[in-house]
Amino acid sequence: MSPERLERINAMLDQRQPDLTVCMEGVHKNHNLAAVVRTADAVGVSDVHAVWKNETMRVSGGSAAGSQNWLDVHNYTNTKDAIDTLKQQGMQVLVTNLSASAVDFREIDYTQPTAIILGQEKFGASQQALDMADQDIIIPMVGMVQSLNVSVACSVVLYEAQRQRQAAGMYQQPRISQQRRQRILFEGGHP
Amino acid sequence: MSPERLERINAMLDQRQPDLTVCMEGVHKNHNLAAVVRTADAVGVSDVHAVWKNETMRVSGGSAAGSQNWLDVHNYTNTKDAIDTLKQQGMQVLVTNLSASAVDFREIDYTQPTAIILGQEKFGASQQALDMADQDIIIPMVGMVQSLNVSVACSVVLYEAQRQRQAAGMYQQPRISQQRRQRILFEGGHP
Ligand SMILES: C[S@@+](CC[C@H](N)C(=O)[O-])C[C@H]1O[C@@H](n2cnc3c(N)ncnc32)[C@H](O)[C@@H]1O
Ligand SMILES: C[S@@+](CC[C@H](N)C(=O)[O-])C[C@H]1O[C@@H](n2cnc3c(N)ncnc32)[C@H](O)[C@@H]1O
Repeated sequence: MSPERLERINAMLDQRQPDLTVCMEGVHKNHNLAAVVRTADAVGVSDVHAVWKNETMRVSGGSAAGSQNWLDVHNYTNTKDAIDTLKQQGMQVLVTNLSASAVDFREIDYTQPTAIILGQEKFGASQQALDMADQDIIIPMVGMVQSLNVSVACSVVLYEAQRQRQAAGMYQQPRISQQRRQRILFEGGHP
Repeated sequence: MSPERLERINAMLDQRQPDLTVCMEGVHKNHNLAAVVRTADAVGVSDVHAVWKNETMRVSGGSAAGSQNWLDVHNYTNTKDAIDTLKQQGMQVLVTNLSASAVDFREIDYTQPTAIILGQEKFGASQQALDMADQDIIIPMVGMVQSLNVSVACSVVLYEAQRQRQAAGMYQQPRISQQRRQRILFEGGHP
Protein backbone atom coordinates (compact mmCIF):
# COMPACT_ATOMS: atom_id res chain seq x y z
CA MET A 1 0.00 0.00 0.00
CA SER A 2 1.36 3.44 -0.90
CA PRO A 3 2.07 5.86 1.99
CA GLU A 4 -0.63 8.21 0.62
CA ARG A 5 -3.24 5.48 0.63
CA LEU A 6 -2.27 4.36 4.12
CA GLU A 7 -2.62 7.92 5.32
CA ARG A 8 -6.01 8.30 3.63
CA ILE A 9 -7.35 5.13 5.24
CA ASN A 10 -5.99 6.05 8.66
CA ALA A 11 -7.58 9.50 8.40
CA MET A 12 -10.92 7.83 7.62
CA LEU A 13 -10.51 5.43 10.55
CA ASP A 14 -9.77 8.36 12.87
CA GLN A 15 -13.32 9.63 12.20
CA ARG A 16 -15.22 6.35 12.52
CA GLN A 17 -18.11 6.31 15.01
CA PRO A 18 -18.46 2.69 16.18
CA ASP A 19 -21.44 3.61 18.37
CA LEU A 20 -23.61 5.08 15.61
CA THR A 21 -25.29 2.58 13.36
CA VAL A 22 -28.16 1.91 10.98
CA CYS A 23 -30.33 -1.21 10.77
CA MET A 24 -32.25 -1.77 7.52
CA GLU A 25 -35.32 -3.90 8.18
CA GLY A 26 -36.37 -5.40 4.86
CA VAL A 27 -35.05 -2.55 2.71
CA HIS A 28 -34.59 -4.33 -0.61
CA LYS A 29 -34.24 -1.96 -3.56
CA ASN A 30 -30.60 -1.95 -4.57
CA HIS A 31 -30.37 1.79 -5.14
CA ASN A 32 -31.73 2.39 -1.64
CA LEU A 33 -29.37 -0.12 -0.03
CA ALA A 34 -26.43 1.43 -1.85
CA ALA A 35 -27.44 4.99 -0.93
CA VAL A 36 -27.89 4.09 2.76
CA VAL A 37 -24.45 2.48 2.97
CA ARG A 38 -22.86 5.37 1.05
CA THR A 39 -24.32 7.98 3.42
CA ALA A 40 -23.42 5.87 6.45
CA ASP A 41 -19.80 5.76 5.28
CA ALA A 42 -19.84 9.52 4.70
CA VAL A 43 -20.81 10.33 8.30
CA GLY A 44 -18.36 7.80 9.75
CA VAL A 45 -20.64 4.86 10.55
CA SER A 46 -18.48 1.72 10.83
CA ASP A 47 -21.19 -0.99 10.94
CA VAL A 48 -24.48 -1.40 9.12
CA HIS A 49 -27.07 -4.05 10.04
CA ALA A 50 -29.54 -5.61 7.64
CA VAL A 51 -32.52 -7.88 8.26
CA TRP A 52 -33.37 -9.90 5.12
CA LYS A 53 -36.86 -11.26 4.71
CA ASN A 54 -35.72 -14.01 2.33
CA GLU A 55 -32.66 -15.56 0.75
CA THR A 56 -33.04 -13.98 -2.69
CA MET A 57 -33.09 -10.50 -1.21
CA ARG A 58 -30.11 -11.28 1.00
CA VAL A 59 -27.97 -12.32 -1.94
CA SER A 60 -28.81 -9.49 -4.32
CA GLY A 61 -29.18 -6.86 -1.57
CA GLY A 62 -26.07 -8.00 0.26
CA SER A 63 -23.90 -7.23 -2.73
CA ALA A 64 -25.41 -3.75 -3.14
CA ALA A 65 -24.85 -3.05 0.55
CA GLY A 66 -21.39 -4.56 0.52
CA SER A 67 -20.17 -2.60 -2.47
CA GLN A 68 -18.43 -0.32 -0.01
CA ASN A 69 -16.12 -2.71 1.72
CA TRP A 70 -14.96 -0.08 4.18
CA LEU A 71 -17.74 -0.80 6.61
CA ASP A 72 -18.96 -4.03 8.08
CA VAL A 73 -22.41 -5.27 7.06
CA HIS A 74 -24.07 -7.58 9.61
CA ASN A 75 -26.84 -9.81 8.29
CA TYR A 76 -29.87 -11.23 10.13
CA THR A 77 -32.84 -13.34 9.12
CA ASN A 78 -35.18 -11.79 11.68
CA THR A 79 -35.76 -8.51 13.47
CA LYS A 80 -35.52 -9.90 16.99
CA ASP A 81 -31.94 -11.12 16.55
CA ALA A 82 -30.89 -7.78 15.10
CA ILE A 83 -32.40 -5.64 17.85
CA ASP A 84 -31.22 -8.02 20.59
CA THR A 85 -27.68 -7.63 19.25
CA LEU A 86 -27.93 -3.84 19.13
CA LYS A 87 -29.27 -3.70 22.68
CA GLN A 88 -26.50 -5.99 23.94
CA GLN A 89 -24.09 -3.42 22.49
CA GLY A 90 -25.69 -0.77 24.72
CA MET A 91 -27.35 1.14 21.87
CA GLN A 92 -30.50 3.21 22.20
CA VAL A 93 -32.67 1.77 19.45
CA LEU A 94 -34.68 4.32 17.46
CA VAL A 95 -37.16 3.34 14.79
CA THR A 96 -38.08 5.79 12.05
CA ASN A 97 -41.85 5.67 11.87
CA LEU A 98 -44.62 7.71 10.29
CA SER A 99 -46.80 7.97 13.35
CA ALA A 100 -48.35 10.89 15.19
CA SER A 101 -46.92 9.51 18.45
CA ALA A 102 -43.32 9.47 17.17
CA VAL A 103 -41.06 12.26 18.44
CA ASP A 104 -39.37 14.78 16.17
CA PHE A 105 -35.98 13.31 15.15
CA ARG A 106 -34.18 16.49 16.24
CA GLU A 107 -35.20 15.98 19.88
CA ILE A 108 -32.94 12.92 20.23
CA ASP A 109 -29.47 12.99 21.79
CA TYR A 110 -27.35 11.26 19.13
CA THR A 111 -24.14 11.55 21.12
CA GLN A 112 -25.41 8.46 22.97
CA PRO A 113 -24.69 5.06 21.39
CA THR A 114 -27.47 4.94 18.80
CA ALA A 115 -28.97 2.53 16.28
CA ILE A 116 -31.48 3.83 13.74
CA ILE A 117 -33.93 1.32 12.27
CA LEU A 118 -35.17 1.95 8.73
CA GLY A 119 -38.35 0.29 7.50
CA GLN A 120 -39.17 -1.45 4.25
CA GLU A 121 -39.94 0.70 1.19
CA LYS A 122 -43.61 -0.19 0.96
CA PHE A 123 -44.70 -1.29 4.41
CA GLY A 124 -42.39 0.55 6.78
CA ALA A 125 -41.01 -0.90 10.01
CA SER A 126 -42.59 -4.03 11.50
CA GLN A 127 -44.72 -4.11 14.63
CA GLN A 128 -41.96 -6.13 16.27
CA ALA A 129 -39.41 -3.40 15.60
CA LEU A 130 -41.80 -0.80 17.02
CA ASP A 131 -42.41 -2.95 20.11
CA MET A 132 -38.73 -3.60 20.77
CA ALA A 133 -37.36 -0.13 20.01
CA ASP A 134 -36.76 2.43 22.75
CA GLN A 135 -38.33 5.26 20.78
CA ASP A 136 -39.90 5.99 17.43
CA ILE A 137 -38.88 9.14 15.58
CA ILE A 138 -40.33 11.10 12.69
CA ILE A 139 -38.98 13.64 10.24
CA PRO A 140 -41.54 16.44 9.88
CA MET A 141 -43.22 16.78 6.48
CA VAL A 142 -45.52 19.60 5.38
CA GLY A 143 -46.41 18.54 1.83
CA MET A 144 -48.81 16.14 0.16
CA VAL A 145 -46.57 13.07 -0.04
CA GLN A 146 -47.02 10.54 2.76
CA SER A 147 -43.39 9.58 3.28
CA LEU A 148 -39.81 10.21 2.24
CA ASN A 149 -37.64 7.79 0.31
CA VAL A 150 -35.96 5.50 2.87
CA SER A 151 -32.39 6.48 1.98
CA VAL A 152 -33.39 10.13 2.20
CA ALA A 153 -34.93 9.61 5.65
CA CYS A 154 -31.76 7.81 6.71
CA SER A 155 -29.49 10.61 5.60
CA VAL A 156 -31.53 13.38 7.21
CA VAL A 157 -31.29 11.59 10.56
CA LEU A 158 -27.62 10.64 10.13
CA TYR A 159 -26.59 14.21 9.29
CA GLU A 160 -28.39 15.44 12.41
CA ALA A 161 -26.36 12.87 14.37
CA GLN A 162 -23.20 14.07 12.59
CA ARG A 163 -24.01 17.69 13.49
CA GLN A 164 -24.48 16.85 17.17
CA ARG A 165 -21.41 14.63 17.35
CA GLN A 166 -19.26 17.21 15.63
CA ALA A 167 -20.43 19.88 18.09
CA ALA A 168 -19.61 17.47 20.95
CA GLY A 169 -16.05 16.91 19.63
CA MET A 170 -16.66 13.25 18.84
CA TYR A 171 -14.80 13.46 15.51
CA GLN A 172 -11.77 15.00 17.18
CA GLN A 173 -10.09 11.84 18.42
CA PRO A 174 -10.03 8.27 17.15
CA ARG A 175 -12.81 6.11 18.59
CA ILE A 176 -12.18 2.64 17.13
CA SER A 177 -9.92 0.05 18.74
CA GLN A 178 -6.36 -0.56 17.60
CA GLN A 179 -7.30 -4.14 16.87
CA ARG A 180 -10.11 -3.11 14.53
CA ARG A 181 -7.90 -0.55 12.82
CA GLN A 182 -5.27 -3.20 12.12
CA ARG A 183 -7.85 -5.60 10.73
CA ILE A 184 -9.32 -2.98 8.37
CA LEU A 185 -5.89 -1.80 7.23
CA PHE A 186 -4.95 -5.39 6.55
CA GLU A 187 -8.15 -6.20 4.62
CA GLY A 188 -8.16 -2.88 2.77
CA GLY A 189 -4.54 -3.26 1.81
CA HIS A 190 -5.13 -6.71 0.34
CA PRO A 191 -8.48 -6.50 -1.45
CA MET B 1 -63.86 18.09 -3.50
CA SER B 2 -64.72 16.90 0.02
CA PRO B 3 -64.35 19.43 2.87
CA GLU B 4 -61.60 17.23 4.41
CA ARG B 5 -59.61 17.19 1.20
CA LEU B 6 -60.00 20.94 0.75
CA GLU B 7 -58.76 21.45 4.30
CA ARG B 8 -55.80 19.12 3.72
CA ILE B 9 -54.74 20.97 0.56
CA ASN B 10 -55.17 24.38 2.16
CA ALA B 11 -53.06 23.26 5.14
CA MET B 12 -50.33 22.18 2.70
CA LEU B 13 -50.53 25.48 0.84
CA ASP B 14 -50.21 27.39 4.14
CA GLN B 15 -46.71 25.87 4.53
CA ARG B 16 -45.43 26.39 0.99
CA GLN B 17 -42.13 28.27 0.64
CA PRO B 18 -42.20 29.92 -2.80
CA ASP B 19 -38.71 31.35 -2.26
CA LEU B 20 -36.95 28.05 -1.64
CA THR B 21 -36.27 25.97 -4.71
CA VAL B 22 -34.15 23.25 -6.27
CA CYS B 23 -32.69 23.16 -9.78
CA MET B 24 -31.64 19.76 -11.14
CA GLU B 25 -28.94 20.17 -13.76
CA GLY B 26 -28.91 17.02 -15.86
CA VAL B 27 -30.11 14.70 -13.09
CA HIS B 28 -31.59 11.85 -15.12
CA LYS B 29 -32.13 8.67 -13.13
CA ASN B 30 -35.83 8.34 -12.47
CA HIS B 31 -35.49 7.22 -8.87
CA ASN B 32 -33.34 10.27 -8.15
CA LEU B 33 -35.72 12.69 -9.87
CA ALA B 34 -38.64 11.19 -7.96
CA ALA B 35 -36.82 11.32 -4.61
CA VAL B 36 -35.76 14.97 -5.12
CA VAL B 37 -39.31 16.06 -5.92
CA ARG B 38 -40.72 14.03 -3.02
CA THR B 39 -38.34 15.62 -0.51
CA ALA B 40 -38.95 19.07 -2.00
CA ASP B 41 -42.69 18.62 -1.47
CA ALA B 42 -42.08 17.42 2.10
CA VAL B 43 -40.23 20.60 3.13
CA GLY B 44 -42.74 22.88 1.37
CA VAL B 45 -40.92 23.72 -1.87
CA SER B 46 -43.50 24.90 -4.42
CA ASP B 47 -41.39 24.97 -7.60
CA VAL B 48 -38.70 22.67 -8.93
CA HIS B 49 -36.50 23.53 -11.92
CA ALA B 50 -34.93 21.00 -14.27
CA VAL B 51 -32.34 21.42 -17.03
CA TRP B 52 -32.56 18.57 -19.55
CA LYS B 53 -29.54 17.74 -21.65
CA ASN B 54 -31.63 16.11 -24.37
CA GLU B 55 -35.19 15.39 -25.41
CA THR B 56 -35.28 11.70 -24.40
CA MET B 57 -34.27 12.58 -20.86
CA ARG B 58 -36.81 15.36 -20.70
CA VAL B 59 -39.67 13.08 -21.63
CA SER B 60 -38.86 10.17 -19.37
CA GLY B 61 -37.45 12.32 -16.55
CA GLY B 62 -40.26 14.85 -16.76
CA SER B 63 -42.82 12.21 -15.94
CA ALA B 64 -40.83 10.98 -12.92
CA ALA B 65 -40.46 14.55 -11.67
CA GLY B 66 -44.07 15.39 -12.42
CA SER B 67 -45.50 12.41 -10.59
CA GLN B 68 -46.23 14.77 -7.72
CA ASN B 69 -48.52 17.26 -9.36
CA TRP B 70 -48.65 19.40 -6.24
CA LEU B 71 -45.60 21.35 -7.22
CA ASP B 72 -44.69 23.09 -10.43
CA VAL B 73 -41.83 21.68 -12.50
CA HIS B 74 -40.12 24.24 -14.78
CA ASN B 75 -38.14 22.82 -17.69
CA TYR B 76 -35.10 24.28 -19.48
CA THR B 77 -32.85 23.11 -22.26
CA ASN B 78 -29.78 24.90 -20.94
CA THR B 79 -28.24 25.99 -17.67
CA LYS B 80 -27.97 29.68 -18.53
CA ASP B 81 -31.73 30.10 -19.00
CA ALA B 82 -32.44 28.33 -15.71
CA ILE B 83 -30.01 30.37 -13.62
CA ASP B 84 -31.00 33.64 -15.34
CA THR B 85 -34.61 32.93 -14.37
CA LEU B 86 -33.70 32.15 -10.76
CA LYS B 87 -31.63 35.32 -10.47
CA GLN B 88 -34.44 37.42 -11.95
CA GLN B 89 -36.58 36.05 -9.13
CA GLY B 90 -34.08 37.46 -6.63
CA MET B 91 -32.75 34.09 -5.48
CA GLN B 92 -29.29 33.49 -4.10
CA VAL B 93 -28.03 30.67 -6.30
CA LEU B 94 -26.08 27.94 -4.52
CA VAL B 95 -24.45 25.06 -6.33
CA THR B 96 -23.69 21.82 -4.49
CA ASN B 97 -20.15 20.97 -5.41
CA LEU B 98 -17.45 18.60 -4.24
CA SER B 99 -14.65 21.12 -4.06
CA ALA B 100 -12.24 22.13 -1.33
CA SER B 101 -13.17 25.77 -1.95
CA ALA B 102 -16.91 25.22 -1.40
CA VAL B 103 -18.28 26.39 1.96
CA ASP B 104 -19.94 24.10 4.47
CA PHE B 105 -23.67 23.98 3.63
CA ARG B 106 -24.59 24.83 7.23
CA GLU B 107 -22.92 28.25 6.98
CA ILE B 108 -25.56 29.51 4.54
CA ASP B 109 -28.56 31.66 5.56
CA TYR B 110 -31.47 29.76 3.99
CA THR B 111 -34.08 32.22 5.22
CA GLN B 112 -33.04 34.29 2.17
CA PRO B 113 -34.69 33.45 -1.17
CA THR B 114 -32.59 30.45 -2.20
CA ALA B 115 -32.13 28.14 -5.18
CA ILE B 116 -30.02 25.00 -4.77
CA ILE B 117 -28.45 23.54 -7.90
CA LEU B 118 -27.90 19.77 -8.01
CA GLY B 119 -25.42 18.27 -10.44
CA GLN B 120 -25.66 15.27 -12.70
CA GLU B 121 -25.16 11.81 -11.17
CA LYS B 122 -21.86 11.04 -12.86
CA PHE B 123 -20.27 14.36 -13.71
CA GLY B 124 -21.65 16.78 -11.13
CA ALA B 125 -22.55 20.40 -11.85
CA SER B 126 -21.29 22.09 -15.03
CA GLN B 127 -18.60 24.75 -15.17
CA GLN B 128 -21.28 27.18 -16.34
CA ALA B 129 -23.36 26.53 -13.22
CA LEU B 130 -20.28 27.04 -11.05
CA ASP B 131 -19.43 30.29 -12.87
CA MET B 132 -22.94 31.71 -12.63
CA ALA B 133 -23.78 30.66 -9.06
CA ASP B 134 -23.29 33.00 -6.12
CA GLN B 135 -21.70 30.33 -3.97
CA ASP B 136 -20.78 26.67 -4.01
CA ILE B 137 -21.57 24.54 -0.98
CA ILE B 138 -20.43 21.15 0.26
CA ILE B 139 -21.79 18.60 2.71
CA PRO B 140 -18.88 17.33 4.82
CA MET B 141 -17.92 13.67 4.37
CA VAL B 142 -15.44 11.71 6.48
CA GLY B 143 -15.54 8.28 4.83
CA MET B 144 -14.04 6.63 1.78
CA VAL B 145 -16.80 7.36 -0.74
CA GLN B 146 -16.25 10.38 -2.95
CA SER B 147 -19.78 11.72 -3.04
CA LEU B 148 -23.32 11.27 -1.80
CA ASN B 149 -26.26 10.21 -3.92
CA VAL B 150 -27.73 13.36 -5.46
CA SER B 151 -31.17 12.99 -3.86
CA VAL B 152 -29.49 12.41 -0.51
CA ALA B 153 -27.39 15.56 -0.91
CA CYS B 154 -30.52 17.48 -1.86
CA SER B 155 -32.43 16.35 1.21
CA VAL B 156 -29.62 17.07 3.66
CA VAL B 157 -29.46 20.66 2.40
CA LEU B 158 -33.26 21.08 2.20
CA TYR B 159 -33.75 19.87 5.77
CA GLU B 160 -31.14 22.36 6.96
CA ALA B 161 -33.15 25.05 5.16
CA GLN B 162 -36.35 23.72 6.77
CA ARG B 163 -34.71 23.84 10.22
CA GLN B 164 -33.62 27.45 9.76
CA ARG B 165 -36.94 28.56 8.29
CA GLN B 166 -38.90 26.85 11.04
CA ALA B 167 -36.76 28.59 13.68
CA ALA B 168 -37.39 31.91 11.90
CA GLY B 169 -41.17 31.37 11.94
CA MET B 170 -41.42 31.11 8.17
CA TYR B 171 -43.87 28.18 8.33
CA GLN B 172 -46.16 30.09 10.68
CA GLN B 173 -48.07 32.14 8.15
CA PRO B 174 -49.05 31.50 4.53
CA ARG B 175 -46.50 32.75 2.02
CA ILE B 176 -48.02 32.01 -1.39
CA SER B 177 -50.31 34.41 -3.22
CA GLN B 178 -54.10 34.07 -3.20
CA GLN B 179 -53.99 33.76 -6.96
CA ARG B 180 -51.63 30.83 -6.87
CA ARG B 181 -53.62 29.15 -4.12
CA GLN B 182 -56.79 29.39 -6.20
CA ARG B 183 -55.07 27.95 -9.25
CA ILE B 184 -53.67 24.97 -7.33
CA LEU B 185 -56.98 24.31 -5.59
CA PHE B 186 -58.70 24.40 -8.96
CA GLU B 187 -56.19 22.08 -10.66
CA GLY B 188 -55.94 19.74 -7.68
CA GLY B 189 -59.68 19.53 -7.39
CA HIS B 190 -60.07 18.55 -11.05
CA PRO B 191 -57.22 16.14 -11.81
C1 LIG C 1 -41.45 4.80 2.18
S1 LIG C 1 -41.35 4.70 3.88
C2 LIG C 1 -42.57 3.48 4.33
C3 LIG C 1 -43.96 3.96 4.18
C4 LIG C 1 -44.97 3.06 4.83
N1 LIG C 1 -46.20 3.17 4.09
C5 LIG C 1 -45.19 3.45 6.29
O1 LIG C 1 -46.26 3.95 6.60
O2 LIG C 1 -44.30 3.24 7.11
C6 LIG C 1 -39.90 3.71 4.10
C7 LIG C 1 -39.11 4.04 5.33
O3 LIG C 1 -38.55 5.34 5.23
C8 LIG C 1 -38.45 5.94 6.50
N2 LIG C 1 -39.20 7.21 6.48
C9 LIG C 1 -39.77 7.78 5.39
N3 LIG C 1 -40.28 8.96 5.70
C10 LIG C 1 -40.05 9.17 7.02
C11 LIG C 1 -40.33 10.25 7.93
N4 LIG C 1 -40.95 11.34 7.55
N5 LIG C 1 -39.94 10.11 9.21
C12 LIG C 1 -39.31 9.00 9.61
N6 LIG C 1 -39.01 7.98 8.80
C13 LIG C 1 -39.37 8.05 7.51
C14 LIG C 1 -38.94 4.91 7.49
O4 LIG C 1 -37.86 4.12 7.88
C15 LIG C 1 -39.89 4.08 6.63
O5 LIG C 1 -40.09 2.81 7.16
C1 LIG D 1 -22.75 11.80 -7.36
S1 LIG D 1 -22.53 13.51 -7.25
C2 LIG D 1 -21.47 13.92 -8.63
C3 LIG D 1 -20.10 13.43 -8.48
C4 LIG D 1 -19.13 14.02 -9.49
N1 LIG D 1 -18.10 13.07 -9.73
C5 LIG D 1 -18.56 15.34 -8.97
O1 LIG D 1 -17.36 15.37 -8.67
O2 LIG D 1 -19.27 16.31 -8.86
C6 LIG D 1 -24.03 14.14 -7.86
C7 LIG D 1 -24.45 15.42 -7.22
O3 LIG D 1 -24.78 15.20 -5.87
C8 LIG D 1 -24.50 16.36 -5.11
N2 LIG D 1 -23.56 15.99 -4.04
C9 LIG D 1 -23.15 14.74 -3.74
N3 LIG D 1 -22.36 14.74 -2.67
C10 LIG D 1 -22.27 16.02 -2.25
C11 LIG D 1 -21.61 16.67 -1.16
N4 LIG D 1 -20.89 16.00 -0.26
N5 LIG D 1 -21.73 18.01 -1.06
C12 LIG D 1 -22.47 18.71 -1.95
N6 LIG D 1 -23.12 18.14 -2.98
C13 LIG D 1 -23.03 16.82 -3.12
C14 LIG D 1 -24.00 17.38 -6.09
O4 LIG D 1 -25.12 18.10 -6.59
C15 LIG D 1 -23.43 16.52 -7.19
O5 LIG D 1 -23.36 17.21 -8.40
